[in-house]
Amino acid sequence: MIILVDMDGVIADFETGLLNRFKETHPDKQYVPLEKRTNFYVDEDYPEEMRNLLREIYRGKGFYFSLPPVPGSLEVLTELQSQEEVFICTSPLSIYEHCVPEKYQWVDHYLGKSWVRRLILTKDKTVVRGDILIDDRPEVTGITSPSWEHVLYSQPYNQQVSSKRRLTWQDWREVLKC
Amino acid sequence: MIILVDMDGVIADFETGLLNRFKETHPDKQYVPLEKRTNFYVDEDYPEEMRNLLREIYRGKGFYFSLPPVPGSLEVLTELQSQEEVFICTSPLSIYEHCVPEKYQWVDHYLGKSWVRRLILTKDKTVVRGDILIDDRPEVTGITSPSWEHVLYSQPYNQQVSSKRRLTWQDWREVLKC
Repeated sequence: MIILVDMDGVIADFETGLLNRFKETHPDKQYVPLEKRTNFYVDEDYPEEMRNLLREIYRGKGFYFSLPPVPGSLEVLTELQSQEEVFICTSPLSIYEHCVPEKYQWVDHYLGKSWVRRLILTKDKTVVRGDILIDDRPEVTGITSPSWEHVLYSQPYNQQVSSKRRLTWQDWREVLKC
Repeated sequence: MIILVDMDGVIADFETGLLNRFKETHPDKQYVPLEKRTNFYVDEDYPEEMRNLLREIYRGKGFYFSLPPVPGSLEVLTELQSQEEVFICTSPLSIYEHCVPEKYQWVDHYLGKSWVRRLILTKDKTVVRGDILIDDRPEVTGITSPSWEHVLYSQPYNQQVSSKRRLTWQDWREVLKC
């Protein structure tokens, strides 16, 4: 079985990292707590005039590398990999300057060189073969019909999706039956 | 039809870029002309004591971005894309620091943002779906049996392979029947 695992919001905690940096940088601004987030794109949960403040953070140097791991994710990846073929499959920002190299550095730092070899960067995940894609994005689309089943990594901002199986790194074993 | 196109030696002229840089940096050293190359990995065409000189160049800052396009490649990509789904599918160096971001910069510079969206970085190309993979590497292997036919991009160092169809950007039309 080939299992594709998304990075941001699944193994690298983009939302926590961004919120913490936002609170540090703009302590006077109102923020949206993680459990109140309803949109996949964080910008859309903030008023227009605040979106550039968020973009400055997540497009900036050092942001992607600074993301904390999603609790449990590193341990589960290691365990899953002992039984199945696991790849990290991630879509970088279009403003790729810092995001792209820092995704490599992050995987190298937290998981090591053997996982750097299992990192796939692609905007279109439908052209990657797999049995399962674990992804927090509500809909994952591309140029073709995917070979994988999209299993949602459950997050506050994807609770409206009812048509897909979902998991977290706490209940993955029951869902995947691994 | 999905066509995957490798980058180094197919659209970015790694071999010419490296040889030119080597001659500039080490004018006193003997070099192997491109037409005399017999190994896919350039290091293997040089004696042991010279390999570090080559590695210093291709692992260094600015090398990947400096590569000239393979003549004809950019025009053919644009034409192919008007008829088929084309992705650039490339395996970065394990020493990824400069190679990875510079591959993005190269594609952005020579082909533009729409092609940055069609760039796939992966060490294992067998997990990428396609009908054809155009690649100069004699054998392209990975964890699974690929969905694509490997069509060799013909280069001096892959002439020993007789089991595969081959093309260049001069004769691609007859081979692919596009």
